[in-house]
Amino acid sequence: MTSLALIEAAAERLKGHARRTPLLSSPFLDDIAGRRVFVKAECLQHTGSFKFRGGWAALSAMDPELRKRGVIAYSSGNHAQGVAAAAKAHGAPAVIVMPADAPQLKIDNTRALGAEVVLYDRAAGESREAAADPLITERGLTLIKPYDEPEVIAGQGTTGLEIAEQAAEQGVTKADVLVCCGGGGLTAGIALALEDRAPSLRVRPAEPEGFDDVARSQASGKIESNPTPTGSICDAILTPAPGDITWPLLSRLCGPGLTVTDDEALRAMALAFQRLKIVLEPGGAVSLAAALFHRDELNGDAVIAVATGGNVDPATFAKALSRFA
Amino acid sequence: MTSLALIEAAAERLKGHARRTPLLSSPFLDDIAGRRVFVKAECLQHTGSFKFRGGWAALSAMDPELRKRGVIAYSSGNHAQGVAAAAKAHGAPAVIVMPADAPQLKIDNTRALGAEVVLYDRAAGESREAAADPLITERGLTLIKPYDEPEVIAGQGTTGLEIAEQAAEQGVTKADVLVCCGGGGLTAGIALALEDRAPSLRVRPAEPEGFDDVARSQASGKIESNPTPTGSICDAILTPAPGDITWPLLSRLCGPGLTVTDDEALRAMALAFQRLKIVLEPGGAVSLAAALFHRDELNGDAVIAVATGGNVDPATFAKALSRFA
Repeated sequence: MTSLALIEAAAERLKGHARRTPLLSSPFLDDIAGRRVFVKAECLQHTGSFKFRGGWAALSAMDPELRKRGVIAYSSGNHAQGVAAAAKAHGAPAVIVMPADAPQLKIDNTRALGAEVVLYDRAAGESREAAADPLITERGLTLIKPYDEPEVIAGQGTTGLEIAEQAAEQGVTKADVLVCCGGGGLTAGIALALEDRAPSLRVRPAEPEGFDDVARSQASGKIESNPTPTGSICDAILTPAPGDITWPLLSRLCGPGLTVTDDEALRAMALAFQRLKIVLEPGGAVSLAAALFHRDELNGDAVIAVATGGNVDPATFAKALSRFA
Repeated sequence: MTSLALIEAAAERLKGHARRTPLLSSPFLDDIAGRRVFVKAECLQHTGSFKFRGGWAALSAMDPELRKRGVIAYSSGNHAQGVAAAAKAHGAPAVIVMPADAPQLKIDNTRALGAEVVLYDRAAGESREAAADPLITERGLTLIKPYDEPEVIAGQGTTGLEIAEQAAEQGVTKADVLVCCGGGGLTAGIALALEDRAPSLRVRPAEPEGFDDVARSQASGKIESNPTPTGSICDAILTPAPGDITWPLLSRLCGPGLTVTDDEALRAMALAFQRLKIVLEPGGAVSLAAALFHRDELNGDAVIAVATGGNVDPATFAKALSRFA
């Protein structure tokens, strides 16, 4: 199980490899939110999202003999890049299983990070497991899951250790900490870290409208699923349901979830461009959108938003600017 | 005169107020440049550019009685915002003299940072001095010059102290340090800091084509001016000539200047968006453009580019993306 000790051990292994991302702010955002707003800019992490932390934590925790055989991940997005970059730095082969209809740029980027990309045909009914299982057996690859994996959660949780330190530096002792939430690995990891290091910072998941499985699970007290798999621009955090490992942590440690619209996410991207000079993807801006546009659902005179990633295509970014900047 | 001691004193006063901006990198940029590329992301500084450092250094060095009367600056851009924010934090009134035809957004932003904006009509032949001089006399305001001012150079030079530390953390012992160069305050300050702290890091000015007054001054050995005042999209660094105080420092400490085209600056902005997830303005991307596209003019296996600012309007940014991303 992920514990504070596992997070601290991951932080030791990440030292000098993952970036300690800055906590940014702007008086213009404070005015909109009606309280002080701090943005933990994980878009500035290696590979453009927090996923590098989990990838590094998992790779660096592996038995060296197993690691030499290689790792495998299913992802067309941020987890793929995080695992590929961490594997390359550890000299471990990485196989990333992606749908054949994934954007060519994502396929190219994953290859450029040194990974072998194996494609499967969703339209023809092929499953990612059918593509991956023979490779796992033949080559002895280790599967790195995106969130339901204790070392991955520990890696993401190192973000929480930094938030505790950086909030203290800013004189913030009590605040809601909003985290863009898909499967809940980052949210659970941060919550575990803050439970010990800064218990008056309360983690709350932020999700896109229609994909608020975590908020609804919190309300009902059991794992709830989303009705549809796609249909929001916040692609990075569209997971079907909280994980079996993450859910008990989310349930025990987090305050109620917040839900934002796609347009609120785009508007938050435009404001992050104007006021913080960072690039956010829609799914990475959901927490900031909640901080800025849902002020009545928050408590206290400060809020911390974890901006989880910036891997957005230029057309979507330009759309956010033309509509909201 | 600005000296290492003055820079160190400024760094002491900036502690906890200016951000220690990160040194970013991406393997994709390394591939383009043919060497390791590190980007000092001063766009993430308060007010979106390094100018906040100089503003803070100047304000914090003032006699408290004088400071209470207030400060004044001429600028429609980054220096205005840096001085306004620093003055506000020091409880000092700030007057910013801007042309009446400056973009409304810049006027609004400067006011929102707490400054009084005084407009003058360039078209009617009014000068900024004619607008400012009566205020200086009547109110006892202190003029904060944008670069030819020892405390301002010292404030900008704190960037160099950080570069020396961060380069060492990355194992970089020898490299060209490219700095977007207007009047030369930042370039001179960094060069002074590195002369002592990391003498094998050599500062080189980077300028837009047609506005390479510093490079031409270096070539001729005396101060040269630009033939025209405007005509590049790199508005932040279009100054007529190196300053009287900055020039002797630039001349003594810097390696030869580099010149890039407007299109190279736009392409560097697009790559910074894609690979670093930061927002750069054209004048803040000139150094990165030189690092990426002028590889044959550089030496060594690493280069450091100081990305000086990110205050760009959405239309210009969208243009960079549509053409080059």
